Amino acid sequence: MGDLEVRPATTEDVSAIVGLLADDPLGVQRETPDDLTPYLTALNRLAADPNQHLVVAVREGHVVGTLQLTIVPGLSRRGATRSIIEGVRVHADERGSGLGTQLIEWAIDASRREHCHLVQLTSDVTRTDARRFYQRLGFTPSHVGFKLEL
Amino acid sequence: MGDLEVRPATTEDVSAIVGLLADDPLGVQRETPDDLTPYLTALNRLAADPNQHLVVAVREGHVVGTLQLTIVPGLSRRGATRSIIEGVRVHADERGSGLGTQLIEWAIDASRREHCHLVQLTSDVTRTDARRFYQRLGFTPSHVGFKLEL
Repeated sequence: MGDLEVRPATTEDVSAIVGLLADDPLGVQRETPDDLTPYLTALNRLAADPNQHLVVAVREGHVVGTLQLTIVPGLSRRGATRSIIEGVRVHADERGSGLGTQLIEWAIDASRREHCHLVQLTSDVTRTDARRFYQRLGFTPSHVGFKLEL
Repeated sequence: MGDLEVRPATTEDVSAIVGLLADDPLGVQRETPDDLTPYLTALNRLAADPNQHLVVAVREGHVVGTLQLTIVPGLSRRGATRSIIEGVRVHADERGSGLGTQLIEWAIDASRREHCHLVQLTSDVTRTDARRFYQRLGFTPSHVGFKLEL
C-alpha cells in the first residue's frame, strides 16, 4: 500500500468523510450523504476554531480515514489541558491495515504538541472490538460515558 | 438557603474553585490549592474561548459549585454540535441540596441555547453515586470512557 498522509480536512474532503461516517452500523441511521449542506456548515465552524483539528488520512489520493481532535483547556489537574478524540472512522478496505492505530497515534502526537496532559475518548458499548483496540494503545477504560440527546 | 446564581467564573473565584476541585477523593491527589498560578493561566485561556463556559454557582456570596461546559462542533450526526460537561463539583455543605441537579440543568439549558444536539460527560467508574444521578437526569450510560495520561 502507498504512503499515508494525515492532514487537515478541506471542503473537498467532506463528501468522503460523510461516506465514512455513514458506512458504520450506528452512522448509517444518523447521516445523510445525499445532503452535504449541514456538514459543510460544520466544517467552516471547525476550520475557524484553533482548538479543533478535523483530519483525514489519505492514501494514493483517497480519503481512507478521519478523526476529530478537540483541545480542551481546563482548571482541574493543575490547569491541565486535555484533548478529546471523536468521530474515528477507517474505510472498510483499510480495516486491519493498522490505519486506526496510525490515526490514534497521530492524535496522541498532536496532543503532546499542544501540551495536553490527557487524551480522552468514549466508545459506544456496542463497539466490542474498540475496547481491546484502545487498551492496546495504552488507554484505560476508567470512566462511564453518559449522553443526553436534546 | 438563599438564592442561587450560576455565572461565569472570574479571577476572584479561582481560589474557591480550586478548593472545590481539591475537596474530592480523586482531586485531593491532583490539585495544588497553595499554588494558584497554573489555574489562573488556564482561566485566562478559557475566558478567551467563546466555546468554553466555566461557571460557578454562588449562594449568599459564596462559591458552592462549579462546572465546565465545552461546545464542540463536528461533522457527525449531520453536522451536529455537542457539548461536554467536565469538572462538576458541589461544596460538601451543599450535598443533597439539589445543587448538582441545578448545575447540570444549567448546562443542559446552556447547551440548548448553543443549539447543541447532544450533551455528554464521563464519570469515573469509582464514583458509584454519579451513575444514578446522571440517569435520573435523563443521561444514558451508553459509552465506555477511555483516558490516556501523557
